[in-house]
Amino acid sequence: MSCPFARENGLDPAQQGKNMVEFGGITYNSYLQLHKVLTAQTLMSEQDGKPVHDEHLFIVIHQAYELWFKQIIYEIDSVREIFSKEEVDEHKMLEIVKRMQRVTLILKLCVDQFLILETMTPLDFMEFRDYLSPASGFQSYQFRLLENKLGLKAELRVRYNQENYMKVFGNEPDIYKRIMASEEEPSLQSLLCRWLERTPGLEERGFNFWKKYKMAVDTILDDQLREAEAEDVEELRAHLQTQQKRRKELFDSIFDVRIHNGLMARGERRLTHKALQGALMISFYREEPRFNQPHQLLQLLMDVDSLMTKWRYNHVMLVQRMIGSQLIGTGGSSGYQYLRSTLSDRYKVFLDLFNLSTFLLPRNCIPPLTRQMKSRLSTMEETSSLVVTTTKPKEGQQRPDEGVSPSPTNFVSADSPCSMENGEEKHTTSDSDLEKSLENSMERSCEASM
Amino acid sequence: MSCPFARENGLDPAQQGKNMVEFGGITYNSYLQLHKVLTAQTLMSEQDGKPVHDEHLFIVIHQAYELWFKQIIYEIDSVREIFSKEEVDEHKMLEIVKRMQRVTLILKLCVDQFLILETMTPLDFMEFRDYLSPASGFQSYQFRLLENKLGLKAELRVRYNQENYMKVFGNEPDIYKRIMASEEEPSLQSLLCRWLERTPGLEERGFNFWKKYKMAVDTILDDQLREAEAEDVEELRAHLQTQQKRRKELFDSIFDVRIHNGLMARGERRLTHKALQGALMISFYREEPRFNQPHQLLQLLMDVDSLMTKWRYNHVMLVQRMIGSQLIGTGGSSGYQYLRSTLSDRYKVFLDLFNLSTFLLPRNCIPPLTRQMKSRLSTMEETSSLVVTTTKPKEGQQRPDEGVSPSPTNFVSADSPCSMENGEEKHTTSDSDLEKSLENSMERSCEASM
Amino acid sequence: MSCPFARENGLDPAQQGKNMVEFGGITYNSYLQLHKVLTAQTLMSEQDGKPVHDEHLFIVIHQAYELWFKQIIYEIDSVREIFSKEEVDEHKMLEIVKRMQRVTLILKLCVDQFLILETMTPLDFMEFRDYLSPASGFQSYQFRLLENKLGLKAELRVRYNQENYMKVFGNEPDIYKRIMASEEEPSLQSLLCRWLERTPGLEERGFNFWKKYKMAVDTILDDQLREAEAEDVEELRAHLQTQQKRRKELFDSIFDVRIHNGLMARGERRLTHKALQGALMISFYREEPRFNQPHQLLQLLMDVDSLMTKWRYNHVMLVQRMIGSQLIGTGGSSGYQYLRSTLSDRYKVFLDLFNLSTFLLPRNCIPPLTRQMKSRLSTMEETSSLVVTTTKPKEGQQRPDEGVSPSPTNFVSADSPCSMENGEEKHTTSDSDLEKSLENSMERSCEASM
Amino acid sequence: MSCPFARENGLDPAQQGKNMVEFGGITYNSYLQLHKVLTAQTLMSEQDGKPVHDEHLFIVIHQAYELWFKQIIYEIDSVREIFSKEEVDEHKMLEIVKRMQRVTLILKLCVDQFLILETMTPLDFMEFRDYLSPASGFQSYQFRLLENKLGLKAELRVRYNQENYMKVFGNEPDIYKRIMASEEEPSLQSLLCRWLERTPGLEERGFNFWKKYKMAVDTILDDQLREAEAEDVEELRAHLQTQQKRRKELFDSIFDVRIHNGLMARGERRLTHKALQGALMISFYREEPRFNQPHQLLQLLMDVDSLMTKWRYNHVMLVQRMIGSQLIGTGGSSGYQYLRSTLSDRYKVFLDLFNLSTFLLPRNCIPPLTRQMKSRLSTMEETSSLVVTTTKPKEGQQRPDEGVSPSPTNFVSADSPCSMENGEEKHTTSDSDLEKSLENSMERSCEASM
Repeated sequence: MSCPFARENGLDPAQQGKNMVEFGGITYNSYLQLHKVLTAQTLMSEQDGKPVHDEHLFIVIHQAYELWFKQIIYEIDSVREIFSKEEVDEHKMLEIVKRMQRVTLILKLCVDQFLILETMTPLDFMEFRDYLSPASGFQSYQFRLLENKLGLKAELRVRYNQENYMKVFGNEPDIYKRIMASEEEPSLQSLLCRWLERTPGLEERGFNFWKKYKMAVDTILDDQLREAEAEDVEELRAHLQTQQKRRKELFDSIFDVRIHNGLMARGERRLTHKALQGALMISFYREEPRFNQPHQLLQLLMDVDSLMTKWRYNHVMLVQRMIGSQLIGTGGSSGYQYLRSTLSDRYKVFLDLFNLSTFLLPRNCIPPLTRQMKSRLSTMEETSSLVVTTTKPKEGQQRPDEGVSPSPTNFVSADSPCSMENGEEKHTTSDSDLEKSLENSMERSCEASM
Repeated sequence: MSCPFARENGLDPAQQGKNMVEFGGITYNSYLQLHKVLTAQTLMSEQDGKPVHDEHLFIVIHQAYELWFKQIIYEIDSVREIFSKEEVDEHKMLEIVKRMQRVTLILKLCVDQFLILETMTPLDFMEFRDYLSPASGFQSYQFRLLENKLGLKAELRVRYNQENYMKVFGNEPDIYKRIMASEEEPSLQSLLCRWLERTPGLEERGFNFWKKYKMAVDTILDDQLREAEAEDVEELRAHLQTQQKRRKELFDSIFDVRIHNGLMARGERRLTHKALQGALMISFYREEPRFNQPHQLLQLLMDVDSLMTKWRYNHVMLVQRMIGSQLIGTGGSSGYQYLRSTLSDRYKVFLDLFNLSTFLLPRNCIPPLTRQMKSRLSTMEETSSLVVTTTKPKEGQQRPDEGVSPSPTNFVSADSPCSMENGEEKHTTSDSDLEKSLENSMERSCEASM
Repeated sequence: MSCPFARENGLDPAQQGKNMVEFGGITYNSYLQLHKVLTAQTLMSEQDGKPVHDEHLFIVIHQAYELWFKQIIYEIDSVREIFSKEEVDEHKMLEIVKRMQRVTLILKLCVDQFLILETMTPLDFMEFRDYLSPASGFQSYQFRLLENKLGLKAELRVRYNQENYMKVFGNEPDIYKRIMASEEEPSLQSLLCRWLERTPGLEERGFNFWKKYKMAVDTILDDQLREAEAEDVEELRAHLQTQQKRRKELFDSIFDVRIHNGLMARGERRLTHKALQGALMISFYREEPRFNQPHQLLQLLMDVDSLMTKWRYNHVMLVQRMIGSQLIGTGGSSGYQYLRSTLSDRYKVFLDLFNLSTFLLPRNCIPPLTRQMKSRLSTMEETSSLVVTTTKPKEGQQRPDEGVSPSPTNFVSADSPCSMENGEEKHTTSDSDLEKSLENSMERSCEASM
Repeated sequence: MSCPFARENGLDPAQQGKNMVEFGGITYNSYLQLHKVLTAQTLMSEQDGKPVHDEHLFIVIHQAYELWFKQIIYEIDSVREIFSKEEVDEHKMLEIVKRMQRVTLILKLCVDQFLILETMTPLDFMEFRDYLSPASGFQSYQFRLLENKLGLKAELRVRYNQENYMKVFGNEPDIYKRIMASEEEPSLQSLLCRWLERTPGLEERGFNFWKKYKMAVDTILDDQLREAEAEDVEELRAHLQTQQKRRKELFDSIFDVRIHNGLMARGERRLTHKALQGALMISFYREEPRFNQPHQLLQLLMDVDSLMTKWRYNHVMLVQRMIGSQLIGTGGSSGYQYLRSTLSDRYKVFLDLFNLSTFLLPRNCIPPLTRQMKSRLSTMEETSSLVVTTTKPKEGQQRPDEGVSPSPTNFVSADSPCSMENGEEKHTTSDSDLEKSLENSMERSCEASM
């Protein structure tokens, strides 16, 4: 192949004519394999001698959906691959963010696409829907793959469907196998968990974000209790006390790891206890350079969840319009009813990220970063694979972390040993003082704000 | 086949499980021929051993575009077929409007789709664009078909491209033939023309819309001239006179058929003189029942033009971003420059509809309908094919038009004989009086408004 | 004022400069009252000396929503006004359809607008949400007006809110009154009902659509029963029999007026029995000229419902993101939980239109129109107000309906007496024969299709 | 004010009822100042006693546009403020990116909003447009402010309008002053320039990106020349030679600062020579942590330009539809013609970013980063304002840059002295070796690729 540079700058050979043949190469049609894509629209109604105009749209729009599902899976797979490396290269973070942004744009398009299908009326649909039997959107294996790869757990799927979910692929062993595999491989959600668990700053023998956070929350809750008890009007006092109690219970559910794990077991929480801490920490300190991309990523994952559920909702609305939602009598569950049930929060893979907002603190109550931590969040750690030369850095050029921690770990190695005994703590003797003043300052600031 | 009714009402067999096999039938995957659609993504960069992530998106998005182009062509063809019947069945008008609405929604989606492709950066693109050579969007035969079927005339295409336009398909004889055919078959634009020419009310020996319209315009122009001449301030007088003159010239260009035809020859007008009259008439009397759908259709055709050109514009912007627009030195025309040139009004197939606004009259100056005309525009004319029973209607049941005009014609038969000698005119002796009072009333109303 | 014509044709005086002053007139800023609109953004956080950047967006986006709500209400009011006339002028149908199309486009924009608000993070929101208290979206009186004017019934509102619903406006008597009035005035939904009840063809002593429709359904259900009983495999037989029974029950719910009214009382049906018939009839014969606009209108009303509910859904998703959805313990209902509950079908004003699809027939089972009916559906009836001249039509020019029914009624007068004794029936002696042959042909066609 | 925390967690007081009064506070209506916003719709046609339905939409949509313009200006101003600080705080980069993302979403909405205005027909518009005179969109001072604040230069505005541009604000001195100021204050474009000029790695006595880049380009151009000359077929040889020459000229325009400045003087380039270098460098090394946000920012600025121009294009299309584009005779320039002319590249403020793609290199020809440079691009530099404690870092904790360069500068201080004599270079004795091997490797890689 000749140097790619040779044909840039708008000097498109297609425009020059004469060297088209010399260059040989490929045509637009063959590159896009249009002989396959554009010959895949066979109207069953036409086959049956009673062509129904709208069946063409029905086929094309579903194919467009499947093309986009393929693209989304492709992007998700690439992101999963990066995250499944034992060391997540921080130089890949921009790429991850860009790919997830692309996924959200595609999903947005998929949501809008329903408007086109809604131009078909139920009467039009009735004319050919019979030919489709028993074909059904339930059989879109790509959509199932996508759900699984994102992290929808089989046990959280709506029961009724769960029976059919794999069943419908019984006669297609290759597909069956792919779906099985997608259930077993680490999902984006689980990989995210492992990555969040390594968030720098969570180490108990270091910055110990969780301890500082709990301290801040306790201070606030205590203040609120005191404030409630000081209330003169009895009715209002009772009300404030109830509210404070309820809020405390809510926080207990994240501070008490047993409660958290119980909620996880019931599918009401999806992030591990440690991962939840990481996600909270990133939310608080998002403006620190190393947290910029992670913060954007968390936002995008919520967008994905949000758009997936909007897609489902639009789908439900369309089904209601096409086949109705009304059922009299007992038992019968319709497609509409089933689909409606998938709108539940159980299908939200990144549910905890939405619920993070419950646990945020006002900015003036957020534990300040130590100087050490601030510096650490300003410097990406390099993985060996990224270093251009393998020569050891000269003395005096070492980054502080390197000096103390032989295995730069967080966000990087999967098995974060957190062997911090002689690690960061060594330099943070001043941190305990800081903590004291932190407690004081926090009290002050919250006092001030009441 | 069993009664289609048997499986409606949300009792989807796919949900019942047991009778899936009994019903046999087709699966989702085979119905959509996903074995073809989802195996058509071969990355050239991967073939070459240097896979480039973003090439996957590049392929998928172009395939999605081609799927939608196929759908649009399918809809346009169906509309063209209805319009090419010698008698256009007015019962089809709703269907036509709905299909064109669908086309606009698809085009809107296609415009938005560019946002997804814009997530690819030039550097990403550079990594694989070389493999594509000499494949090029110029080779999208479906886009060329679409342009031709809508009514883009070969002679109005930008020169530079015209050389290549058919050339690039030289090695693909089937495609070449299809494009040639699309140039020769009547386009939507030309069919529209023929249909507009039959607009009821244009007959000289009937309502004679054009005469009434010209009268109204003359009255207005005369008033304006008088008003201008009455102006005291000399500078303003001159200004008003110039304006009136310019406006008169503009109207001359539609009243003088030679000027109009001259503009047509230069591609600056696309509707025939008679069709232009029909379009204007529909615009004025759109609320009359028979003009409801025609009016909506004209609006939609503008939407199509508008969206096609927005699509082109988004394309240009993308190309500029991917390969740049800057060229120093002589001669070289880039893809960007070529594409920019297609944004001109020459590529607007329904240009005249946009320009109709130039020739509208204020509502109080629009010639009022005669009673006869009003009645005629309230009653769809039936074509023989639509009559359920062929038995003659009994006496006393005849619609007025039937009683007088043996061949109810306009909007219906292609060769509108307009043999109205003993037709409508017979009953419109009062119309000449009406015309008189119309002239008077118009003068009054316009006087009043000055 | 001078003739409006004087300044059209792109000869914008603003471009001419010199006559701007002469013409006097208004400026862009004063016309749009920007001194009010653009001075209405006061950040509470800024007032408090701690400006929060994102509060500006929060204010602006809500103001944009309120502007659009005002526009939607304006359009809905104008449509309600047309429909509330004792005689609905069919010449207004196009305008109605266009206004409802506009409403759907605005709602679509409002749905998309949430994407902008989602750029605000919970932490940003937390910084100023406290200032807003107790302001709340619940207090958007325009949204309540809109709901009521569309036809949301107070008794179908989610309980919890119902308490507050009017309460929050307690201190704003003018608003309180407007909302009260909007509950009492005829809603779009109820006006639609009255209009649908007058659908031409429903008269028992005429075309009698309902009888024909029931006949067709009975034939189909009988066939299905026979088919089920003829099944050899016992298990499948039982299954088919159950299905047929269930379907029969479903149809009973529309044929038995008591069941229908019972469902209405519970809010599960919203259209009166007669209106439901009209809606079904329009769906079946939509291609008939007089049903074109009504059909489009019904589609648009579903679009409105669909978009309103998508708007609610997007709102719910945003709230979940901003304040979380997680609540531990008893009792507390959150904004999230309340909003989620409004997604129920109870909030769908035009629910029945969605469910119509349940009661459609395959095209080959739809009762064919009589010649008479076909003709009637081709001719708009004129209201007196529309007739240009009041001169009686000459003999022999009468439309058939006029000849027989002195008060051409359907779709027109509100109190359709349907005094058809000596009306249409007189001429439809052949219709009874037609009916016979219809029964036969339907049996044949449905036989053929099994 | 009480602690903001007190009312989070979905415990919205608006829902509690009883403490609404206690909390006092503000209502939704007063917060949004709806008494101003919703009373600002006065139909001139109504004032004149001839209300035109569509004027309401016309007013509301323009007000919505103005609200959004205000929001965009607010965001742009906030970004300009950050950039105008003498030291740009890298901790603000995420915020900048997020605000620009918001701007693009708003602009996207503004583009889509035209679809709503297109539901108005020219005939509807004609009924009230006369009242508006001489009000005109030209008088939207916020749009002019926006253009100026982004960086549209007065001298690049289309002539005809330039005359009127300030003139129309002649009677509104406050507005006039604001627009004047917006011309004089540093625009986003100029601030971007200054910031790009400080891109780390541009220092001649350091990494010296420009030298390395030129070397790479020269190598490629030389190869291409040799390749061309080696071509046997004469015709093709000549063709290749011409192409190479043209490409060389193109590169000369960025290597020869006089040519570049010449193009700047003519408005065909907007970035200074140094800023252009910075933008290219960011494009090449975007995955380096410190370039992540800058890369995203550059993409977003292109999006802004792209959307602004799409907005203009949609505007042009609307104007054509409303008033036509056809002009016969001499002289008269219409609104349509003027608006069309603003679509030119002269109105693209970030034009150079689009054209960067012309100057990209294939990845295998991009100069590799030195170890030093790589490390530097991994570490954000802190500004003094960010340091929590002012205590000097202890020895051994210094980051490498700190150890060697007393004033870490790039992206930070405005007057980057680049006094690198005893700076980075000291440690990069190995860099010269690297450079040698770079030259070799580049030659090899490009050889390999031909």
